[in-house]
Amino acid sequence: LIDIQAAAGSGHPAIAIASVGVTGLSYPIVALDAATGESQRSAADWRLGVALPAEQRGTHMSRFLSAVHEASAAPLSLDGVLAMTQALVPRLAAPVAEMSVAFSWYREMKAPVSQLTSLAACRVTYGATAPAHGDATKTLTIAVPAKALCPCSKAISERGAHNQRSDVTVSMTLAADATTWAINRVITAIEASASAALYPLLKREDEKFITEFAYDNPVFVEDIVRNAAERLSDAPGIKTLVVEAINRESIHAHDCFARVVVSR
Amino acid sequence: LIDIQAAAGSGHPAIAIASVGVTGLSYPIVALDAATGESQRSAADWRLGVALPAEQRGTHMSRFLSAVHEASAAPLSLDGVLAMTQALVPRLAAPVAEMSVAFSWYREMKAPVSQLTSLAACRVTYGATAPAHGDATKTLTIAVPAKALCPCSKAISERGAHNQRSDVTVSMTLAADATTWAINRVITAIEASASAALYPLLKREDEKFITEFAYDNPVFVEDIVRNAAERLSDAPGIKTLVVEAINRESIHAHDCFARVVVSR
Amino acid sequence: LIDIQAAAGSGHPAIAIASVGVTGLSYPIVALDAATGESQRSAADWRLGVALPAEQRGTHMSRFLSAVHEASAAPLSLDGVLAMTQALVPRLAAPVAEMSVAFSWYREMKAPVSQLTSLAACRVTYGATAPAHGDATKTLTIAVPAKALCPCSKAISERGAHNQRSDVTVSMTLAADATTWAINRVITAIEASASAALYPLLKREDEKFITEFAYDNPVFVEDIVRNAAERLSDAPGIKTLVVEAINRESIHAHDCFARVVVSR
Amino acid sequence: LIDIQAAAGSGHPAIAIASVGVTGLSYPIVALDAATGESQRSAADWRLGVALPAEQRGTHMSRFLSAVHEASAAPLSLDGVLAMTQALVPRLAAPVAEMSVAFSWYREMKAPVSQLTSLAACRVTYGATAPAHGDATKTLTIAVPAKALCPCSKAISERGAHNQRSDVTVSMTLAADATTWAINRVITAIEASASAALYPLLKREDEKFITEFAYDNPVFVEDIVRNAAERLSDAPGIKTLVVEAINRESIHAHDCFARVVVSR
Repeated sequence: LIDIQAAAGSGHPAIAIASVGVTGLSYPIVALDAATGESQRSAADWRLGVALPAEQRGTHMSRFLSAVHEASAAPLSLDGVLAMTQALVPRLAAPVAEMSVAFSWYREMKAPVSQLTSLAACRVTYGATAPAHGDATKTLTIAVPAKALCPCSKAISERGAHNQRSDVTVSMTLAADATTWAINRVITAIEASASAALYPLLKREDEKFITEFAYDNPVFVEDIVRNAAERLSDAPGIKTLVVEAINRESIHAHDCFARVVVSR
Repeated sequence: LIDIQAAAGSGHPAIAIASVGVTGLSYPIVALDAATGESQRSAADWRLGVALPAEQRGTHMSRFLSAVHEASAAPLSLDGVLAMTQALVPRLAAPVAEMSVAFSWYREMKAPVSQLTSLAACRVTYGATAPAHGDATKTLTIAVPAKALCPCSKAISERGAHNQRSDVTVSMTLAADATTWAINRVITAIEASASAALYPLLKREDEKFITEFAYDNPVFVEDIVRNAAERLSDAPGIKTLVVEAINRESIHAHDCFARVVVSR
Repeated sequence: LIDIQAAAGSGHPAIAIASVGVTGLSYPIVALDAATGESQRSAADWRLGVALPAEQRGTHMSRFLSAVHEASAAPLSLDGVLAMTQALVPRLAAPVAEMSVAFSWYREMKAPVSQLTSLAACRVTYGATAPAHGDATKTLTIAVPAKALCPCSKAISERGAHNQRSDVTVSMTLAADATTWAINRVITAIEASASAALYPLLKREDEKFITEFAYDNPVFVEDIVRNAAERLSDAPGIKTLVVEAINRESIHAHDCFARVVVSR
Repeated sequence: LIDIQAAAGSGHPAIAIASVGVTGLSYPIVALDAATGESQRSAADWRLGVALPAEQRGTHMSRFLSAVHEASAAPLSLDGVLAMTQALVPRLAAPVAEMSVAFSWYREMKAPVSQLTSLAACRVTYGATAPAHGDATKTLTIAVPAKALCPCSKAISERGAHNQRSDVTVSMTLAADATTWAINRVITAIEASASAALYPLLKREDEKFITEFAYDNPVFVEDIVRNAAERLSDAPGIKTLVVEAINRESIHAHDCFARVVVSR
């Protein structure tokens, strides 16, 4: 059967493709947190791409699927994703490869007073970029919701203060040989940066504790991202840190956001 | 050109189709609130379908598009949607037709203290079901966010109370000849059922007012739907009233919901 | 600490709550297909609710979380979800309980010519409704995409035929004691009802096979749901079967849908 | 009332905020295409933000709402969005401001054979970035679906070829004083880059035409973005052009994407 992708020129000798590949791919993962050795099997969303030189018409899409299928059985850490990305470069004869895989990760939480245990979800993305020549990087992205209680509302009101869920996302781009922080360590830094952590299972005594704790720790959306940046920007080998928070305001139907970008 | 949909039998002489048609169709609307005479042009999401007898293989999809295109230019009220649905019955030789069209609707709000004006969005859906024989109905659905402050958190805590955005949806199915409530009248009933209304534009004096007002009016998610049902269930000609609220909890990452269904 | 939910009357002595509970809850599952004994750990989306009598103000939300946490560790089948729902009735002193849990499920597929293996995702929902008095039911819902090639386009065109992804969803509501079909058996019935199955990993010889196979098996969206209903409606103990297909049309920006409802 | 945002230092003297503001804001727009003079009222999604110096704790969120409310009544072009962004700089005493507003835009299409008229939607985003010192830019983003028929599938198969909807997005970042292309001119360039355009309303003779036309014009996802880049990259004043296409593959459940980035 003819190989159209390879046989023909692109017809566009001056236009290289920045990235071409597959996205929206649901495939299982055994995600490994190398810092703790814990692994969890889950559904994952994969995206893989390569740059394509100007003279080549098409990439070979099925090779991405083979790579994912091979990687899907064994535990896969952030360094594993980096190695997988680096292996795409010769496999697709590409000048640069990039990939990301996103999955839900669960951690045990204890309610602050009752000490009851439940499992809280966060969204983790392992990503990497690998050029044929030069330095590869890896990116750990963690999204976790927390509580934000408005300092302005508290200061000006005689009683109460509006508060809301805040979706906080941290993205740490690291040198290839850097040690990666444990998922829970990043989450702890995020939760300590907001008014309070969120819990799946709370009894009344816990609800009282969190209500009062949040009231005593008001933060603006700007405070959250700065607090988190301060806790995370000294991670060894970090090249770029992005922290974004989106407050689902409870006095408005729209959201408020803030973003910090730290480059080393 | 051969008409495959009409020419062939279905091959399934015992299986009628409950509904077949088009969905995910973006088409403009000039939405008319007949109770007030106000109209607004907007983008809209259309869904139209008909039942198909067991012996007929396919419907004629392009007729739905013609119907929407014809309706799109002039102001369209809930009664207009009902008439459009009734016209689909002979147009597609169908035993029953149904449709819905959803759009954003804006209303002017005044901040409670500063009296500053801004425009708040809600989501309105006009729907109807029309059988070839028997009574047609029309359905007005309005979704609007409001504020919910937790009575339990307030009662047990020494300071503060957790509160959050609550997405409230009211769906009123009415007799074909019933008078339809104005959109704003339904929204007022919803907002009065929650701890406070949400506003796009608030100055500090307004934020203080709403914070304290909500603190003084705590409601559970169950309270919201019952309060709204009480205000709305006496609408003339009402056949079924459904009220659902979803609280985007600010001490949990999950949501709490409640739903009331009243049939007359 | 005062129990506001239990202590107070509802203030609405005539308005019962149809369902109140938690939704949007991400919690892990070890999903078990009882028909085959296969289990898969995954992230899951949980929704649990109970009816609430008119005189009771609020339910006890934390009990839903306890129930999920307890169920989360061991393999959970559709019958397990039914048992869990039945246990909610006394646990929350409710007249009726309902729940659903949705997760990604992967199955091995072999490409039709190359016989290469890959894992394809479908979305499975286990659901149940359990009244305090009367018969409980359980519902197996499976959503899987397939290929639909238009019979009209093929018949009227000199070359080619438009074809597209079709999202097909089957929902089987069963008596409590009915045997549940294996997930793969339902999927096989769906895929045989469309123009072709979709595969994650295909080589050129497979692509040629599927292109020609789909061209030889054209189906309207109405055909898909009727074909699937015919294959599934004789499942033992079935009470209601709903099949819906949504074709992501490749000659339109909107979708076409069809739905069959069979009640026994 | 105390102004907490302004009164306090940030507590983080070394951490500036890259962007802080509002997002997820639904507000009406009268969108103006300055190249043609056509305007359309619609619902719009607004996002506005400013950078915040390290020593300032919080921005003044309500000023974004005032700016949107003032802009909402009159026709707003891309140059109007640029002027609005530039006005945010002094209004919020910010080192840089950025904003975007996204809306559905409808254009008349004529079916290729029947010449029947219908209205097709695309998604347009007007954006701008304005620094206190230096050059501002404006960005026109247009997303429109088209048809992609696979050249490989056609070449290797004896009959038929798989084809699918492709979501194509073009983003043109322009110098502040550059002339902006008409929306329809960009869309025409996109549609000419794919296998065929999509139409809301088609009769059988049109369906035949498009089926055959697409079969005669096969394109890979890489071809689409290169074809579009060639047609668009010579726009006057262009600084960066990004073209991305996502094919909703009809032989896979996942998507294929390609992206070109041209910088001048």
